[in-house]
This record gives sequence, structure tokens and C-alpha cells, in this order.
Amino acid sequence: MFVLSSPSGAGKTTLSRLLLRADAKVELSVSVTTRPQRRGEVDGRDYHFIDRGRFAAMVKKGELLEWAEVFGHRYGTPRRPVTKALQAGCDVLFDIDWQGTQQLREKARDDLVSVFILPPTAQELERRLNRRAQDTKAVIASRMAKAAGEMSHWPEYDYVVVNRDKAEAFAEVRAILAAERLKRDRQIGLSAFVRRLQAKL
Amino acid sequence: MFVLSSPSGAGKTTLSRLLLRADAKVELSVSVTTRPQRRGEVDGRDYHFIDRGRFAAMVKKGELLEWAEVFGHRYGTPRRPVTKALQAGCDVLFDIDWQGTQQLREKARDDLVSVFILPPTAQELERRLNRRAQDTKAVIASRMAKAAGEMSHWPEYDYVVVNRDKAEAFAEVRAILAAERLKRDRQIGLSAFVRRLQAKL
Repeated sequence: MFVLSSPSGAGKTTLSRLLLRADAKVELSVSVTTRPQRRGEVDGRDYHFIDRGRFAAMVKKGELLEWAEVFGHRYGTPRRPVTKALQAGCDVLFDIDWQGTQQLREKARDDLVSVFILPPTAQELERRLNRRAQDTKAVIASRMAKAAGEMSHWPEYDYVVVNRDKAEAFAEVRAILAAERLKRDRQIGLSAFVRRLQAKL
Repeated sequence: MFVLSSPSGAGKTTLSRLLLRADAKVELSVSVTTRPQRRGEVDGRDYHFIDRGRFAAMVKKGELLEWAEVFGHRYGTPRRPVTKALQAGCDVLFDIDWQGTQQLREKARDDLVSVFILPPTAQELERRLNRRAQDTKAVIASRMAKAAGEMSHWPEYDYVVVNRDKAEAFAEVRAILAAERLKRDRQIGLSAFVRRLQAKL
């Protein structure tokens, strides 16, 4: 379970998409949300857009691995697709905030790797939020104000990437994933592999 | 402190040299040894070649971080160059065996990252040992016999890389180093960086 989090506008969604395109062993966990669909967003790819009634029903039936309320809207992670992808030997990518990560961490224990993306400067963060034409001025102002608070959660993450340059930050995220896959505990079958080698020496 | 270990012939020395050439922030810890210099080896680059008397004196004065006897020869890590490089903000690379790693691990605690390199097959290991023309048949046979034993130490390492292809294995070693540098705890100054960002939002 591979988590990318960041304050709004620091680039986690762009980096997530690049990773999904580049790595066939990575599956995205698509969140459910009650917030309105933005221009350019695709239902089922970016989010599953559902109403508050449906969301409440999912919570009640235990169908969400984690959920949280942010800016007055609810966001949650459906449990079933995650379990299925992990059982198929895939890594599951989560593009979620610090609240979701805290809940996920309690459930996943050792098998969660978390990366926090930071913007290089305050000006750059503002520039990126303004570029998202679909947000209203009020929403942007509110996101800027919240970003400072969101940033204080970096010490809860395993890795921190400062997103100065998209290509560089992407290479760093891929290096983290590659290294985590090379961890001794994660290499299933290594014990048998070494026994076969030893038998032939 | 970044350790590369492997059974003889699995490629740790080749990978170490590639890493030193590619990454200016990595300094090699050059071991001292009492074994005879091989053809092509440079004193002070591959090892510091010293006699048993000088070795014993270094042990006695506590000048070695770790030392061990392998195939009847002694190998050790001089303490001073390691301390100096770490203080200068470099990463120190150790091309040492499992005995050296065990001792180093006790001393370094959290700040040691260890990688075990495995050969892809027994045949490939034999081929690589034969290619080293400077070793006698007897030495090769003895190394093959020992390799099986050395291999059982893979579970003591943080990461395992199977050296199927030199370029691929090298990319994996670099990814491990890159990821370890991105670990939250290792990024000095991140706390101040985030405070400066927050102050401007």
C-alpha cells in the first residue's frame, strides 16, 4: 500500500497519474466522494461521485477502509478493490490526505509506505492553485489557508519529496517504490531461491 | 553508512565502483587487509595492503570499526576516514562481507543501510569466478564452496538485489540509496523549510 499525500496543489495527483501510466504493477485506489465533480474529472477514474446518503450507507456497512470530511465534503476508500488488487500481487496507490493516511496506517501496519509531497515555495503553491481554473477564488483562498495546516503533517510520513521539478519528483517517487520492493521482507520466494542456488554449489 | 555485501563473484565490487563513479556524495571506505595484492589491484584504492603486525597494532589501538578473518586473511575498516566523511555530509560505502556487516550494524544502529547482492544462478557465479584469471583453481574451488555458506546471511540485510544484469542491478542499488536519502528522518533542515513555507501562506 503506497500513499502519496500533499497539501492541495503540491502535485500528488499529477505524480500519481504519471506513476500509474509508467508502472503496470500499480493500481490506483479510486476514492468515493460527496463533493461535486470538477471540470475535466471523470467519474470512476478520478473519484466515484456519490451522494451523502450512499456515502453514509457505505460507512454503515463497513465498506470503507477509511473516510474523512475535508472542506465540508466526505472522502473515503472502498475496501473491496484494495483487497482484490493486493491479493493479485499488485501495489495499490492511494492519493489521499493526512486524515485518510492516519486511518489507513492503523489498518495496514507494516505494509504501508507513505510519501509526503511538499511544494518548493509558497509562491509556487499559489501559482499552481490559480492554474486550476475550475476552482473559485473563495475555494483557492480557503485552500491556501488550509495548506499551512496540512503541511504540519509531514513528520507522520516515511518519506518526504519536495516537488521542485515534476520529472525530478517523479523519479524520486519511483525510486522509493523500487527500493521498497527490494526490501528483504517484501521479496516473496527469496528463501526458496537461495536454497535452490545453494543446492547447486 | 551504505553496505554492499555478496558471496565472492556476485558483483558487489563492480557495483561499488559504478556507484562511486556516478555519485559524488558517496565515499568508499577502503579496507585494510593482510591478503596479498592481486593483479590489477591498486594499493589505497582497492585495499590498504598491510602485514599482520601492522593489522594487530590497529586492532589494539581501536583504529578499526570492524574486522574479520576470511580464507585465512584479515580484513578491517579503518575508523577515521569513515567518521571524517560522515561529518562532511557524505554517505560512506562499505564493500564488506557479512561478518564485517554484523559488527558494523552493532555500532551504527539506525544509520546503516545494508544491501545483499545475489548471483542469478550457480552457473553464472562459477563463470564469474573463473573469469577472474588472477585466482588459482584451488582458490576458486574454495570460494565456490564458501559461497553457499555466505548466501545464508541474506536475511540479515535490509535489501536484496539479484544481479541478473549489471545495469539493472546498478539501477536498483541507486534507487535504494536515493530512497534512503528521501526518508523523513534523514532530511536535515526539513523542519525549518516547512516553517518558512507556512509563514508565507
